[in-house]
Amino acid sequence: MSGPRLEKYDIVIIGAGPVGLLLSTCLARWGYKIKHIDMRPEPTVTGRADGIQPRSLDLLRNMGLKRAIMAYSPAKVYEVAFWDPRQNGTGIHRTGTWKSCPSFIDARYPFTTLLHQGLIERVFIADLEKNNVRIQRPWKIFGFENDGADEEYPVSVSLSHVDGHESQTVRTKYLFSGEGAKSFVREQLGVKITHKDPIAHMKCTIHSDAGSIMVIPREANMVRLYIQIASSTDEDWSPRKSATTEEVQAAAKRILNPYWIEWDRIEWYSVYPIGQGIADRYTLDERVFMGGDCCHTHSPKAGQGMNTAFLDAQNLAWKIHHVETGFADRSILKSYESERRLIAENLLNFDSAYSKLFSQRQPSAGEVQDATKSAETGESQDNEFVKTFKESCEFTSGYGVAYDANIFNWSESHPAQHPLFLSEAKGRTKLRSGRILTPATVTRVCDANVVHLEQEIPLNGSYRIYLFAGKPSVTKNAVADFAYGLEKKSSFYSVYQRPDIDAVNYHERHHPHSNFFTISTVFNAYRPDIEIQEMLPELLVRYWDHIYADDVWDHRVPNAKAAAHAKMGLPEDEGGVVVVRPDGYVGCVVKLVHGSGTVDALNEYFGSFCVKPMGTTRAQL
Amino acid sequence: MSGPRLEKYDIVIIGAGPVGLLLSTCLARWGYKIKHIDMRPEPTVTGRADGIQPRSLDLLRNMGLKRAIMAYSPAKVYEVAFWDPRQNGTGIHRTGTWKSCPSFIDARYPFTTLLHQGLIERVFIADLEKNNVRIQRPWKIFGFENDGADEEYPVSVSLSHVDGHESQTVRTKYLFSGEGAKSFVREQLGVKITHKDPIAHMKCTIHSDAGSIMVIPREANMVRLYIQIASSTDEDWSPRKSATTEEVQAAAKRILNPYWIEWDRIEWYSVYPIGQGIADRYTLDERVFMGGDCCHTHSPKAGQGMNTAFLDAQNLAWKIHHVETGFADRSILKSYESERRLIAENLLNFDSAYSKLFSQRQPSAGEVQDATKSAETGESQDNEFVKTFKESCEFTSGYGVAYDANIFNWSESHPAQHPLFLSEAKGRTKLRSGRILTPATVTRVCDANVVHLEQEIPLNGSYRIYLFAGKPSVTKNAVADFAYGLEKKSSFYSVYQRPDIDAVNYHERHHPHSNFFTISTVFNAYRPDIEIQEMLPELLVRYWDHIYADDVWDHRVPNAKAAAHAKMGLPEDEGGVVVVRPDGYVGCVVKLVHGSGTVDALNEYFGSFCVKPMGTTRAQL
Repeated sequence: MSGPRLEKYDIVIIGAGPVGLLLSTCLARWGYKIKHIDMRPEPTVTGRADGIQPRSLDLLRNMGLKRAIMAYSPAKVYEVAFWDPRQNGTGIHRTGTWKSCPSFIDARYPFTTLLHQGLIERVFIADLEKNNVRIQRPWKIFGFENDGADEEYPVSVSLSHVDGHESQTVRTKYLFSGEGAKSFVREQLGVKITHKDPIAHMKCTIHSDAGSIMVIPREANMVRLYIQIASSTDEDWSPRKSATTEEVQAAAKRILNPYWIEWDRIEWYSVYPIGQGIADRYTLDERVFMGGDCCHTHSPKAGQGMNTAFLDAQNLAWKIHHVETGFADRSILKSYESERRLIAENLLNFDSAYSKLFSQRQPSAGEVQDATKSAETGESQDNEFVKTFKESCEFTSGYGVAYDANIFNWSESHPAQHPLFLSEAKGRTKLRSGRILTPATVTRVCDANVVHLEQEIPLNGSYRIYLFAGKPSVTKNAVADFAYGLEKKSSFYSVYQRPDIDAVNYHERHHPHSNFFTISTVFNAYRPDIEIQEMLPELLVRYWDHIYADDVWDHRVPNAKAAAHAKMGLPEDEGGVVVVRPDGYVGCVVKLVHGSGTVDALNEYFGSFCVKPMGTTRAQL
Repeated sequence: MSGPRLEKYDIVIIGAGPVGLLLSTCLARWGYKIKHIDMRPEPTVTGRADGIQPRSLDLLRNMGLKRAIMAYSPAKVYEVAFWDPRQNGTGIHRTGTWKSCPSFIDARYPFTTLLHQGLIERVFIADLEKNNVRIQRPWKIFGFENDGADEEYPVSVSLSHVDGHESQTVRTKYLFSGEGAKSFVREQLGVKITHKDPIAHMKCTIHSDAGSIMVIPREANMVRLYIQIASSTDEDWSPRKSATTEEVQAAAKRILNPYWIEWDRIEWYSVYPIGQGIADRYTLDERVFMGGDCCHTHSPKAGQGMNTAFLDAQNLAWKIHHVETGFADRSILKSYESERRLIAENLLNFDSAYSKLFSQRQPSAGEVQDATKSAETGESQDNEFVKTFKESCEFTSGYGVAYDANIFNWSESHPAQHPLFLSEAKGRTKLRSGRILTPATVTRVCDANVVHLEQEIPLNGSYRIYLFAGKPSVTKNAVADFAYGLEKKSSFYSVYQRPDIDAVNYHERHHPHSNFFTISTVFNAYRPDIEIQEMLPELLVRYWDHIYADDVWDHRVPNAKAAAHAKMGLPEDEGGVVVVRPDGYVGCVVKLVHGSGTVDALNEYFGSFCVKPMGTTRAQL
């Protein structure tokens, strides 16, 4: 209040769309000091993105925000339909339907959730306010520099009210641009966008001789129409073409012939060219980052924009957290670009492969049914159509995200080469590093609640360590040795013990010992037969709320006695250890054995990117 | 404002506990003018009821209130555990566990939801406020008379502020007392309570040589303990015994030996004697009604109070609605007492039968497992233990409610004697009149959403008519004849056509034609094969949102092609018609046939309690 003291922040976030809000929400919960601005005087009023993919709904649930989203009664899309012109020129007819998220994808919510972006933003904003973060509006950025003048807060950022009467320069550890396609930050950094052809593949679409329409149901009985009013093959084509509502409505009527359409009212209306592109870089210095539409623009018909933005933000959030808390090496921040840019590229490349294969021809209903069946049974994977169909479903549901092998995603070429690592490639587990953890339903032992295992640990910035403990009689010693290994002072787990461990409240469920790991134990046993205090070492007992019985039947593995073990592809009797990244993607899978091997392997894995030394061998102790 | 004009109401409700609030909420939604008062200055602050049974959660969902309840993150109880003293005097040990709602009960939510009553009340109050009903507090009733001085508003009610400075006399069509155990209305009516022995059967309980405790998990990490501090067999026993918190805590510590307990803080504490009783009458004149604790008090350990109260209110709400809208004869109001008093009596009687059978001995874990299996497979139903075990589970989950045969619940002795009625007794359907409709998952045709059929029609005061339409190729004519029969001017359906039918908005989903019926059609077909406009008569097409494909596999009928048909016990090809009361209980089941028979049978059924004449035969038309 008394003079211009320079404000310092952990992060300055520009833009309060999906990517900025999700990043801000995570970091605010984890205690970071945030300056978050947006150019608009208020959240999105109408229009913009509206489709939440199944995978994104998992994420929102993991953040405890799904219920607030669902309270708006969004539309749910389980199926898409294709309409094409009849040969005889009498207008369109339906040529087939396609499940949004067919049953071969193991999704908790096999539907797309449709809801106005402004309502989604409000859910995040309400959560931010609980953590005392308020979006400063309408403010914009007009300058920034990673000048290193302050070692701890190397970036200087200049902000101003949009009317220009007020401005402020602050220092920050990180600057994040979630500005959208027109990004001041990106421009200043000189990062180029590589443009791609607009996608030709559209799911849920009406093709007619007069153009195309995509129909999207929405909350409150509304419908959104994407109406094609021009094509780049038109003689008079211009990317700046405009159109009145009446012209657009007339186009819709022509396309829908022989069906008719009327409007009660128009909620929102906009004309824009469809463009796709991807930024060459997401960061230059791992201090100034970009994400969301700032880095990749999609055809709105692909339904990818907001969902990709969410995952950008989630990916960056925990990495910044791990660096800033002294857990992981600063070099991990490079993986934000390498992981997320690859996904954006894959999405665009997939689309061109898809359209090449089908050359505008929609597959028939019969072909889709056959492909669904093949995908379910895992047959004929070398059939090109089945493969592309499956990939297409995975991309549009959000489960197509697969990060390449790197320091987090174990592979044969990972620096950790302990022989106990299990890989999907060698058929030792069904889990794939860099892929989302397979969902599984289990019984929580402490209160007998039937729960979704993959949702039991919230998005709290921690690694999730799942001890699939097999049959208690078989694994008794291995489980004891595992706990013994963790307790060793030099283990990855103990070197990151909480400094305030003596003051930890007994209600603490997720971080009783370490702020970077939450451990879950899953027994292949019937719940009433599990006696927590008799069957588990003390260290694991402390994770009282994270002990589970794998005793719930699952129709996907109908013959399994322990369905969760079976779904992970781990032996039902011997179990195994699964390390899941804070964002829910599998890091590595390790065999559960007598002796120190299991923890040794994990020490190698974490040792490859953690800051503190760990994992001296037994002999050295 | 200007002078003492006598206010007139459709109903005056005394008491804003669960029974009064649910009644008020229903009637407010259906447009009734309500005066609702409560003696307390604010909703329940702490204590009182906290257990929502699985069946009650269905009801709250049907009212659209479940999400608001769940937003409070209540505890969920899936299992109960029994603890008994060891023979050797070393304190208690766990002797078994028991599922709250075992899998032989087909429940959507097989758990008890535990939440402070005040939070539940707030959910109702918020809904009431949307309909401009505010609870007047702290006010009480001090007089009433069904004096008939005004034919339309026969009851005079005198109310006053609890401090006595302000009072008001109003006239009303109905007076409802949800005052609780100490009821002014009941006392004035001279209705006696028949007392019963306190129940001896308690689920989820700790028996020790020092007394008993029941432990109930609650929201926000709280726990509720019911601690026995005296027994009627004690020498110095008094029903007015009091105890300090310290004395109660000491009792708990003795009972829990060899385990220990500490208190962080005490949220709420009360000492009361356990008493059970039932009012001889619920109404004398079908104008002044009572419900909830006013009519029946249970041991709190039975967990029945609030749940029975909810169902009392629901039962009365639609009956008043049907009389006041001129749909049904006033005599149906007598069924409120006959139906609801029977349930209260059954609950109390069952308890005494139960305790007699077991004489305080808890069944062993093995016995419970065997009984669960027998109950699931339907074997050995004449085994007394299995029968009682099953009944016990049904009662405590809320699915034990079975209304006797009467004018709503068809039986062989119903006045409607058309030969097409199907009964469970004769094995022609699995549905039982007076029992809740079996849940079934189906695909909604219009938007491909996978939905819970039994929840698709909200609690809107209407009869729910489910046309299980079997295979389209088989039932084509029968379905057409069914619609033709409904369209006839004299059908039960057409005589109650909406007077404003020409003005009905096309968004109207539930009442396009009649305010008293919502019709759902369920085909045994794969969703993409259903073409609504080609396969359905116009009348059924208008229920666009209520056309379903019975194409979702169900593990309870794994071999069925049409699981919903199979679960109802209807032939998968030929189907059948199920009439469900507005409260979700089955009224009657009728065979679906060519010709007029199906609608003829329904005309007879509705003709037996509806006001308008209906169902002249084809010859008479």
